[in-house]
Amino acid sequence: MYHKTKEKVHGLLHPEIVGNKNWDKVINVFIIVLIILNVIAVMMETVPGFHDEPHEKKFFRYFDLVSVIIFTVEYVLRVWSSNHELKYRHSIKGRLKYMVSPGALIDLIAILPFYLHAIIGLDLRILRILRLMRFFRLFRLTAYMKSTHVIINVFKTRKNELLLSLILVIFLIILSSSAIYFAEHDHPVNQYKFTSIPATIWWSVVTLTTTGYGDMYPMTTFGKSMAGVIMLTGVAFFALPAGIITAGFLEEFRKNKKHPNTKCPHCGKIIDLDDSHDH
Amino acid sequence: MYHKTKEKVHGLLHPEIVGNKNWDKVINVFIIVLIILNVIAVMMETVPGFHDEPHEKKFFRYFDLVSVIIFTVEYVLRVWSSNHELKYRHSIKGRLKYMVSPGALIDLIAILPFYLHAIIGLDLRILRILRLMRFFRLFRLTAYMKSTHVIINVFKTRKNELLLSLILVIFLIILSSSAIYFAEHDHPVNQYKFTSIPATIWWSVVTLTTTGYGDMYPMTTFGKSMAGVIMLTGVAFFALPAGIITAGFLEEFRKNKKHPNTKCPHCGKIIDLDDSHDH
Amino acid sequence: MYHKTKEKVHGLLHPEIVGNKNWDKVINVFIIVLIILNVIAVMMETVPGFHDEPHEKKFFRYFDLVSVIIFTVEYVLRVWSSNHELKYRHSIKGRLKYMVSPGALIDLIAILPFYLHAIIGLDLRILRILRLMRFFRLFRLTAYMKSTHVIINVFKTRKNELLLSLILVIFLIILSSSAIYFAEHDHPVNQYKFTSIPATIWWSVVTLTTTGYGDMYPMTTFGKSMAGVIMLTGVAFFALPAGIITAGFLEEFRKNKKHPNTKCPHCGKIIDLDDSHDH
Amino acid sequence: MYHKTKEKVHGLLHPEIVGNKNWDKVINVFIIVLIILNVIAVMMETVPGFHDEPHEKKFFRYFDLVSVIIFTVEYVLRVWSSNHELKYRHSIKGRLKYMVSPGALIDLIAILPFYLHAIIGLDLRILRILRLMRFFRLFRLTAYMKSTHVIINVFKTRKNELLLSLILVIFLIILSSSAIYFAEHDHPVNQYKFTSIPATIWWSVVTLTTTGYGDMYPMTTFGKSMAGVIMLTGVAFFALPAGIITAGFLEEFRKNKKHPNTKCPHCGKIIDLDDSHDH
Repeated sequence: MYHKTKEKVHGLLHPEIVGNKNWDKVINVFIIVLIILNVIAVMMETVPGFHDEPHEKKFFRYFDLVSVIIFTVEYVLRVWSSNHELKYRHSIKGRLKYMVSPGALIDLIAILPFYLHAIIGLDLRILRILRLMRFFRLFRLTAYMKSTHVIINVFKTRKNELLLSLILVIFLIILSSSAIYFAEHDHPVNQYKFTSIPATIWWSVVTLTTTGYGDMYPMTTFGKSMAGVIMLTGVAFFALPAGIITAGFLEEFRKNKKHPNTKCPHCGKIIDLDDSHDH
Repeated sequence: MYHKTKEKVHGLLHPEIVGNKNWDKVINVFIIVLIILNVIAVMMETVPGFHDEPHEKKFFRYFDLVSVIIFTVEYVLRVWSSNHELKYRHSIKGRLKYMVSPGALIDLIAILPFYLHAIIGLDLRILRILRLMRFFRLFRLTAYMKSTHVIINVFKTRKNELLLSLILVIFLIILSSSAIYFAEHDHPVNQYKFTSIPATIWWSVVTLTTTGYGDMYPMTTFGKSMAGVIMLTGVAFFALPAGIITAGFLEEFRKNKKHPNTKCPHCGKIIDLDDSHDH
Repeated sequence: MYHKTKEKVHGLLHPEIVGNKNWDKVINVFIIVLIILNVIAVMMETVPGFHDEPHEKKFFRYFDLVSVIIFTVEYVLRVWSSNHELKYRHSIKGRLKYMVSPGALIDLIAILPFYLHAIIGLDLRILRILRLMRFFRLFRLTAYMKSTHVIINVFKTRKNELLLSLILVIFLIILSSSAIYFAEHDHPVNQYKFTSIPATIWWSVVTLTTTGYGDMYPMTTFGKSMAGVIMLTGVAFFALPAGIITAGFLEEFRKNKKHPNTKCPHCGKIIDLDDSHDH
Repeated sequence: MYHKTKEKVHGLLHPEIVGNKNWDKVINVFIIVLIILNVIAVMMETVPGFHDEPHEKKFFRYFDLVSVIIFTVEYVLRVWSSNHELKYRHSIKGRLKYMVSPGALIDLIAILPFYLHAIIGLDLRILRILRLMRFFRLFRLTAYMKSTHVIINVFKTRKNELLLSLILVIFLIILSSSAIYFAEHDHPVNQYKFTSIPATIWWSVVTLTTTGYGDMYPMTTFGKSMAGVIMLTGVAFFALPAGIITAGFLEEFRKNKKHPNTKCPHCGKIIDLDDSHDH
């Protein structure tokens, strides 16, 4: 009965595997809503004047406390029922292995700030915003699983080309920072802005991403000429990752037309084909 | 003869189905021109000094009145002749069903501001700009029907991936707002701008879309470092929807080469294939 | 001999048809260089202090005069030899037909400002910059002909979808201008900037293209919220034409692999396949 | 034994050909780390206050000296062992031919500033930043070779179309600069900014790349109208290179699925297929 309970709890916490749609969905929707409210609460607590009244401060404290209790109970249940899966079969090693998996770490980070503050007094409560990361659980629901895998696979398959374009971008940033620093650091006005190559890197990133705040810009003719070339080149370089990502998506869309989602004939649970293939 | 008249009126108002090119086109061009003039009138009424003279004010009032009368007559005729189509056959239920369809609602919103103002005195006349929405009628003409369907289908087919990238974008906005708020809210100058996380969200959106007005930007070294990473990441994240949309278009262009537009063999009217298939 | 001379002159002026590489290339390179120098001269004449000395002013005057003489002689020769081609066979009607073709009109606009100024005294000499348009002649050389056709065909084939996305963009501009005008025109500071819907259109275009000068931006919370949504939507809408153009290029690249450039077996001249097909 | 030593040294310096993974990798990682430290040192030397203390100045001097010695030794070894390859077999001509190849020139530029300063006293030490170019050596390692070739081939295959879009972009810049100069140079405020067409070119590039610093922008209604059209057109024109690059990537990804990397059956070294084909 212990195992049946564990299997049941595991099923409740992982509806995407069991394929159940009633009670599980309710629990997950409840947890999702709680996460969203938590994130909004953290954002609102930073607004000056929003919770100055003592009863308002109390409300936020209690809301946080209740949320942490619910999340902690959920976390404990997850760790306990984790070794129902084959990957984590061993009762101690398996559970530790589960605790260092990305999903479990995110769940832990979500409740840790409260305990660190309550027990040690370390105020990193802004890390509560990381509860937002628990949203990724949504992505495991069947409806979104295919789409998430599409996006993740695009990055996996093309990671070499993407890394290369990132390195090219870093090159461009360093070279253009040096060039514009060299041109502007003697200018009567700009010498106080373009004070060093690292300082000019801020200008490079702001300009190459075409954000262009206007807090720093070249004022010498030589600097403007070089900046013009840098801006035009930057547009091409930044088209590289976009092109790689887009071409990658097309490949994925083609692949997916041939391997639709299937159910295991033995136990009826949904098999994620990408897990069972070599990659 | 009642039915023949209804059929004729319906044909006049829906030339894309009958495939007629003379009288119907005239009526539609006239209505389109009237819509454009209306929209320009609403825009011009906001320009100070443009219609201060009493005779100018009168002109605008009369123009608006005449337009509303024409649109009202057209609306009534559309509702009356709507049950010629199979979808809306029932004389009351069918017509009510037509009245809540998107096209009919837009037509109603177009004339409502005038009546609300005239009868109840509620001045939402800026909503007259929504007459612009009636422009979508243009898109139903045969020439543009295929193109409209291409664009709509791209969004329909890829809606899961697009929704996912939207959620990822919202994540990025919330996480970067929190990070930069944390970095800048103690800075002597920036504390008056980066006053809370919601306030910083404005900076995030302006920066991640690379608009970069320059009203707010990080001034601490830590803030600038994080902002640099955020900007470079943002460019990649914003390449996701672009890539999905582009790859989607390619699929649509391929599909369309195989299924050209067809006419119904029985009544000769043009069949919209996407309506008759499962989707 | 008249016809032989005409054929020879025509061949000199249209090397892309004859496929000749020696004398023709020299003439064309000379004309191209002259155009570039002309354009640079027009740009430099606007720089204050650049040509204040009388001998400098004389130099520019003479350079312009010589250029106009050369271009006029070239224009006359082109019109005279134009009826060597089948399209323009008739001696008067054919030549008039040639004179209204885009290429000939550009050549005329290039020399007209000088004559208008010399004869009538109308100073539209800045139109001399349009001599730059004569650069399109370069594109007719064999090496670039395929590439030019690729780019032109992308726009030709997809013109319906591109027109639609343009209309959608105009919609977005009008709707967002109205919304932000409504939100900002009562703000103590912004009422002097967002003075009317047409004035707000400037903000819309600057923001939707993500240029973001920073001369105008929303300051009310309601305005900022709507602007945030507008900016995120704008990024998607502006991805439409990019997607259509990119997908269009892929189709063109595929097509071109099957129809390489061919020479006419009878006269040895290069046939432009797109001209001989229906389009 | 001389040849064996040369072959061994050549193998050490070119691990991507021999396919060795132990000692060679160590040497290359060491050189790469030294390059990165050098680049960081050059950037940090520009930060005011960073190395004012005499012992700090000494540290940077010695670090630079040691680096130059190591790079010089490496350079001499490379030139000496270069004629092991068939391309550079001749002992003098072959080595000179190697010395003018891009890789060797970059290596020379990396050490030249030091010698120019030490021997002649010419201070171009900022050129030390060009040591960063030596990073391209990383790209020759097998893992990244395929990806580098993918990116290079995209630009090689599509160079005509890319050159054309560059020319179109230059056109757009010159035409828009002339138009906006014409509109703004009489404006009371803007006459001091839009002083000439070359001055307006700065505005054009900043605006067409959508960077938009906000240091210059049209203030006349006519100027704003034209600028709006220019901005919308610019977005389309800048989509051209992005589209060409993306479509190019797709072609490359397809090609690569058919021609995997192969080893020479005779000597076991890795053959770069693109070098052995006509292009």
